[in-house]
Amino acid sequence: MKRRDLLKNSATGAVAGVASAGAILSAPAVARERIEINMVSTWPKDFPGLGTGAQRFAKRLSGISDGRIQVNYFSAGERVGAFDSFDEVASGNAQMYHGAEYYWKGKHPGFAYFTTVPFGLTYTEINAWIRFGGGQELWDKLAGEFGVKGLMCGNTGVQMGGWFRKEMNSADDFKGLKMRMPGLGGDVIAKMGASPVSLPGGQIYENLVSGAIDATEWVGPWNDEIFKFYEAAKFYYYPGMHEPGAMLAVGTNKAFWDGLSTSDQLLVEAATAMENDVMMSEYNWKNGDALNRLMSEQGVKLREFSDDIYDAFGEASEEVFEDVQDHSPLAKEIHESFVNARSKVGAWAKISDQAYVSQRNRVLGL
Amino acid sequence: MKRRDLLKNSATGAVAGVASAGAILSAPAVARERIEINMVSTWPKDFPGLGTGAQRFAKRLSGISDGRIQVNYFSAGERVGAFDSFDEVASGNAQMYHGAEYYWKGKHPGFAYFTTVPFGLTYTEINAWIRFGGGQELWDKLAGEFGVKGLMCGNTGVQMGGWFRKEMNSADDFKGLKMRMPGLGGDVIAKMGASPVSLPGGQIYENLVSGAIDATEWVGPWNDEIFKFYEAAKFYYYPGMHEPGAMLAVGTNKAFWDGLSTSDQLLVEAATAMENDVMMSEYNWKNGDALNRLMSEQGVKLREFSDDIYDAFGEASEEVFEDVQDHSPLAKEIHESFVNARSKVGAWAKISDQAYVSQRNRVLGL
Repeated sequence: MKRRDLLKNSATGAVAGVASAGAILSAPAVARERIEINMVSTWPKDFPGLGTGAQRFAKRLSGISDGRIQVNYFSAGERVGAFDSFDEVASGNAQMYHGAEYYWKGKHPGFAYFTTVPFGLTYTEINAWIRFGGGQELWDKLAGEFGVKGLMCGNTGVQMGGWFRKEMNSADDFKGLKMRMPGLGGDVIAKMGASPVSLPGGQIYENLVSGAIDATEWVGPWNDEIFKFYEAAKFYYYPGMHEPGAMLAVGTNKAFWDGLSTSDQLLVEAATAMENDVMMSEYNWKNGDALNRLMSEQGVKLREFSDDIYDAFGEASEEVFEDVQDHSPLAKEIHESFVNARSKVGAWAKISDQAYVSQRNRVLGL
Repeated sequence: MKRRDLLKNSATGAVAGVASAGAILSAPAVARERIEINMVSTWPKDFPGLGTGAQRFAKRLSGISDGRIQVNYFSAGERVGAFDSFDEVASGNAQMYHGAEYYWKGKHPGFAYFTTVPFGLTYTEINAWIRFGGGQELWDKLAGEFGVKGLMCGNTGVQMGGWFRKEMNSADDFKGLKMRMPGLGGDVIAKMGASPVSLPGGQIYENLVSGAIDATEWVGPWNDEIFKFYEAAKFYYYPGMHEPGAMLAVGTNKAFWDGLSTSDQLLVEAATAMENDVMMSEYNWKNGDALNRLMSEQGVKLREFSDDIYDAFGEASEEVFEDVQDHSPLAKEIHESFVNARSKVGAWAKISDQAYVSQRNRVLGL
């Protein structure tokens, strides 16, 4: 340390001594209160990406605070069922959950926007909306009505369009199709004449094999490979319009959150922000390899949805959004903020990431 | 809190009492050592995005630790010049810097890969490489040789291709062009017959107005608007091949880093990871508006580089990469790891973000 720093710092009274290795100071120590957090989750134990990411976050929150914040993590079913996580936290029985906000759209359709909606935002776009476009404020308003404070904590990226037994050549091929697709995406294909079915991940395979459903979507290659959907359906379509960047969330009991010190709030924010990106990075790293294995080892046929099908998705989505906005002024306010963000960051994406990756991949033959 | 938790926790001996608001425990408190960090930076004070992001990180690191970690932040020139930041930290005179690793490519060309290189990785791609593709390990190996530990801490996203006085219709138009473009990007246009010039941000405008240079790149609309390049050059090209996602970094003196407790290392990591995304989100939110202002208020003409020009960029880049790999085995190792990551995540990007945003924007007319 330079002399000018010592002089500067002694004036502040903060320096009592200087250790040899850099600037770890010997005194005085800082005492902070212990905190215990019971954290429930919507994910099965050790489920790759979603579950392991939530568990990694819980561990990081303990580690970052040197154990001062003790996080007791409960996978889905270990304390409450996956879909009871929100109520468990809103009621104060637990302090936090990790999950996807669109699971609570039965309470308010506005929650869907804080995971993903059809024709919605990608990872970088939703981060921009939440952090700088008023998204967090609207989320606080919505979740606050239920006694919860939400923070971004993970993302799957753009999901695949789904597994089909036959090629999907036009929008008409969706008529009468029994397809597993929850949420607003399911509402979209219903408008196109399909029969959407909502099934938890663990029940999809048996329904696909038995013929109870004709098609399914789940997440992407890394997660889908594990469930072996390729044994019953060989056509794997992209890109998914229904979940173009499913953002996961940590919800904290609001009274508990408000009782935390400012610095502990900042600490929780930093830990969630790190997991937000770590999970996305893991999906982006692992999906490509998994897709290659699916094609080379399992005979999966990769197909792209046609413009005709995407046009139909687009029309049906607009109808679904009309229904959502009719729910309440807050639903309308959230939708309008989302549309504004999509126009703005979508236009910028077009001449930045889109234009660049398109040229780079063309030149390099990727 | 449920009775079963109280029972469970009392068995661990961690619970001495339960406060009314959630699970803030009354005792015992945790004492941790005070740490002081002098942090230098390569950015001018309050420079939007880069400087304000670095300052926000410094403030967060203090805030997250409730002031236990005291960060004294010095903008470029306040303690040492911008380009002396690395030596200041490597020598132990300061504990951290915020900057761009490619500024140290004179020490070793491998550093360029830990900011951005021509035909390189986008924001989500470089995050995947650093976190899951072996990038961090190679960075540790490289920076470790100089006594520094690097962590990702911000990103500008895909940069614009630059400001030109005339339309650039073919690769031949680069012949004889005097253009401000530092780093490997400058080497690329040199291979195409241009004369690259390296100038600090604050000196570009005067050189462009006087005619000392014909063209310049800087960052993107939000940053470029401030420097008023449009007064001297009206053609604004995209996408930039030279900096497709400039990652910023925090470098920490390695002996100081190794002396930190594991939990303080985790804490620094979380704070850097949060700024990594917050800065990117801010650029993505603000660039679009700035571009619209530049076009509508300043008469800026937006142009896309042609396939012919991009093909020439591609060929010249390969030549530049040959030179880099000739430097040393470590440079070659880093390059090969980068190329592998680009192939893998680039192919995944093509059928995820690229395919989706292309269809979405087409359907919505964005």
